[in-house]
Amino acid sequence: MTDAAPRRGRGRPSRTQTEAGPATRDRILEAAREEFSERGYEKTSVRGIAKSAGVDSALVHHYFGTKEQVFEAAIEVAFAPALDAPEMVLKGSLDGIGERLTRFFLGIWENPTSRTPLLAIVRSAVHNDTAAAVFRRLVVAQVMRRVADRLDVPDGELRVELAAAQLVGIAMLRYVIKVEPLASVDMERIVARVAPVVQGHLTNP
Amino acid sequence: MTDAAPRRGRGRPSRTQTEAGPATRDRILEAAREEFSERGYEKTSVRGIAKSAGVDSALVHHYFGTKEQVFEAAIEVAFAPALDAPEMVLKGSLDGIGERLTRFFLGIWENPTSRTPLLAIVRSAVHNDTAAAVFRRLVVAQVMRRVADRLDVPDGELRVELAAAQLVGIAMLRYVIKVEPLASVDMERIVARVAPVVQGHLTNP
Repeated sequence: MTDAAPRRGRGRPSRTQTEAGPATRDRILEAAREEFSERGYEKTSVRGIAKSAGVDSALVHHYFGTKEQVFEAAIEVAFAPALDAPEMVLKGSLDGIGERLTRFFLGIWENPTSRTPLLAIVRSAVHNDTAAAVFRRLVVAQVMRRVADRLDVPDGELRVELAAAQLVGIAMLRYVIKVEPLASVDMERIVARVAPVVQGHLTNP
Repeated sequence: MTDAAPRRGRGRPSRTQTEAGPATRDRILEAAREEFSERGYEKTSVRGIAKSAGVDSALVHHYFGTKEQVFEAAIEVAFAPALDAPEMVLKGSLDGIGERLTRFFLGIWENPTSRTPLLAIVRSAVHNDTAAAVFRRLVVAQVMRRVADRLDVPDGELRVELAAAQLVGIAMLRYVIKVEPLASVDMERIVARVAPVVQGHLTNP
């Protein structure tokens, strides 16, 4: 995703602007990630992203297209660790998949660096239909479906989604709404109770 | 909650304004519910609520106090069915509590009339710390804690929260983000898979 080739020609930036190449593209992406994190999808504008990156709006359009497309690219970067999940979670026996998935998911949320962009994505997806659609495309297609394929059982997709619902709900109550005692309890106590539930959703008859 | 007695004297409305009594208070509350539902917590103002109810802002302050307090009162109304949950869910044997809780929770979300204000609350709570605090006070104190008391087991509150997390996650993926197939699948198929999980969280050793 560091390819400097323009996705869209819209705005046709001048030669001086495009010369900056990959570094500028990355700077825009970083600015977009910060703007979306701070303001959420609705309040973020292409103009604001451009200003924060120190470039012209036309250049943002040139590299990414519409605001929705900038958002999708920014989410992809923020989600990069989660998109690697399937490989880590799927290798190894099906017996341990519940615990691996639970640890992986909570691990991403426990780390403040990966938590911030995730929070921004969740907030945007809850608030805005366009952001929700981007979330569905990325997470469902790239993560959930791959887990479902590995299971190779009837209702695989529904099972994966119910397991995901258990984990998403914990993220909501622990990290977003901050309900006690769940917000402060040691992660291992959650893993002990939740890994078998996730496992059950995925592999119980 | 239809008592017309002022919570706060702020703004001191004139005699003509207060004469309206309970009907006015209810009208303000209804306007508040609609404004918060449509705009979310952050974008809603006391002034906007007053305008929509056809009263002076001072009267809103007179009956409810601050914006946070109007929000709490509006949530209480929207949540009235959920606040009745403990009684319905708690009577009967502990064996069936997982299924009763699951059916009750999904039932509220399946009904468009009760879903709309719930969605507004969730959106606001995800987006705004003040709204999240109101959510915690109401839902945790009034619903979760009463279920935990009924269980009378060690870790009762954590158990209830993990069960709630399973249900909240389903609400997020089915009704908010609308992930397929979960968004369209018949409710009974969800109950069949989820009621035992909720039951396990609450009563398994």
